Amino acid sequence: MKFVKKFRVEPGSDVHLGSIDPSFHGDYANDAEAAQELQRNLTRITELQRKLYADRTHSLLIVLQGIDSAGKDGTCWHVISAMDPQGVQVTGFKQPTPEEKEHDFLWRVHPHAPQRGYVSIFNRSHYEDVLVVRVHKLAPKEVWKPRYDFINEWEKLLTVENKTTILKFFLYISKEEQLERFKARLDDPAHQWKISASDYSEREKWDDYIKAFEAALSRCSTEHAPWFVIPANHKWFRNLAVSSIIADTLDDLNLKLPKPSVDIEEIRKLYQQAKNDEDRSKAG
Amino acid sequence: MKFVKKFRVEPGSDVHLGSIDPSFHGDYANDAEAAQELQRNLTRITELQRKLYADRTHSLLIVLQGIDSAGKDGTCWHVISAMDPQGVQVTGFKQPTPEEKEHDFLWRVHPHAPQRGYVSIFNRSHYEDVLVVRVHKLAPKEVWKPRYDFINEWEKLLTVENKTTILKFFLYISKEEQLERFKARLDDPAHQWKISASDYSEREKWDDYIKAFEAALSRCSTEHAPWFVIPANHKWFRNLAVSSIIADTLDDLNLKLPKPSVDIEEIRKLYQQAKNDEDRSKAG
Repeated sequence: MKFVKKFRVEPGSDVHLGSIDPSFHGDYANDAEAAQELQRNLTRITELQRKLYADRTHSLLIVLQGIDSAGKDGTCWHVISAMDPQGVQVTGFKQPTPEEKEHDFLWRVHPHAPQRGYVSIFNRSHYEDVLVVRVHKLAPKEVWKPRYDFINEWEKLLTVENKTTILKFFLYISKEEQLERFKARLDDPAHQWKISASDYSEREKWDDYIKAFEAALSRCSTEHAPWFVIPANHKWFRNLAVSSIIADTLDDLNLKLPKPSVDIEEIRKLYQQAKNDEDRSKAG
Repeated sequence: MKFVKKFRVEPGSDVHLGSIDPSFHGDYANDAEAAQELQRNLTRITELQRKLYADRTHSLLIVLQGIDSAGKDGTCWHVISAMDPQGVQVTGFKQPTPEEKEHDFLWRVHPHAPQRGYVSIFNRSHYEDVLVVRVHKLAPKEVWKPRYDFINEWEKLLTVENKTTILKFFLYISKEEQLERFKARLDDPAHQWKISASDYSEREKWDDYIKAFEAALSRCSTEHAPWFVIPANHKWFRNLAVSSIIADTLDDLNLKLPKPSVDIEEIRKLYQQAKNDEDRSKAG
């Protein structure tokens, strides 16, 4: 199944999350049925990232968004496990610091845009400034409304100037699934320290969040930086879909390993010489 | 086997790498025999890093050094695979940029010291400024000589001010093993682009590098920031030893998960209420 096509938000279209099933899992009955394809995706990502790094022409920016407990951390860990850490950087964006608040909303994200050859993963992102900010009225409408256009222009800058491929994943879980995950946290001593009452008060704003997500997905899915709505009630399907989209997208870049900068046959001579020296010194 | 004790450079002692066997592999005959213990170490690291992150009192700085092809990248990837990416940052230090050269040698590394709760991994580090700089005479002796003390003081600052635990690993391979690895690169088309003639000219400076490493290991292994000399001819043993030292060291911190900031029983009521609302809305 071509997940790129299936889950991409067509630029210019209006997203209605109500018409999307967050429990969707395609033709796969369960985890086990998807395992082989998932492993294949991860192996492809490993190889393709190696080429991306070597080629130093393109870069990749992955944006992860989703409501609390949607699986941003888990997805991040999963995808990154396939990548050589020297070429990838994860940045989590939390509540802005006092200094960050004194700047425009893109000021704190821009330094984390990937350099050529590299992958950047944003765990939350500049989209928070049209999500939580909108829902909680942390800024008036005349402030957050123009941000959709600013985002589109900024993302375009990265793709045009620096050949950055941008993939934005909205991990979509249902309100029921979130409650299940909250229950699991309650019952797991290792997670209890993370729990706060606001987890529950935020649920009262569920519909507002959905509306804010729909606006961001509709207004900011562009040809150069598409959004994908990933059904994420099943963690294994979420990982399968995300890894598949990343692998297919990197594949389309037709990345090539650079030619050796040296004459390999000349280097073989250097190797042979070193080998001879070594053998001689052992014999001596 | 307690690798911490075995491979730690005793503060104040003089390191002679010639008396250490880079092919050492303890009581393990091979990869397969070590596999179970290695997996156990990684699982322990996962759990301990979770606590480190939650606890927000300590932090961990891992420094990886070694001669070209000693396995810094591989070790990094291996160790990091056990860690939640949201709490860990890898920084590779390459040739300093023109701007970096206009500053003291610690200026570019300091910003990457780990914040509380986090792990930083340095792939190469501030030690380059007493290694390659010394070997290639990139700075005169009166410049690099005082740096050992500066390093010790700076590392002490991190441990005293910010409860940073510092583990420094020198991945020790033999000159023969390096040549084997160069050969493997020559024969692997995916690696040929990385090859340069300087790989071989650097080998002529092998003894100078060893001397520079010995000085750094002897002068900068301190109680607060010890060096470990890891026999690294066998990649599997190197991973075993490094992961074991990281796990044991984190263990000794007696990290505790913080108590929940809320009354869990009160939250259970919120959960139950949300669950009832959900059931009611389904029924209606």
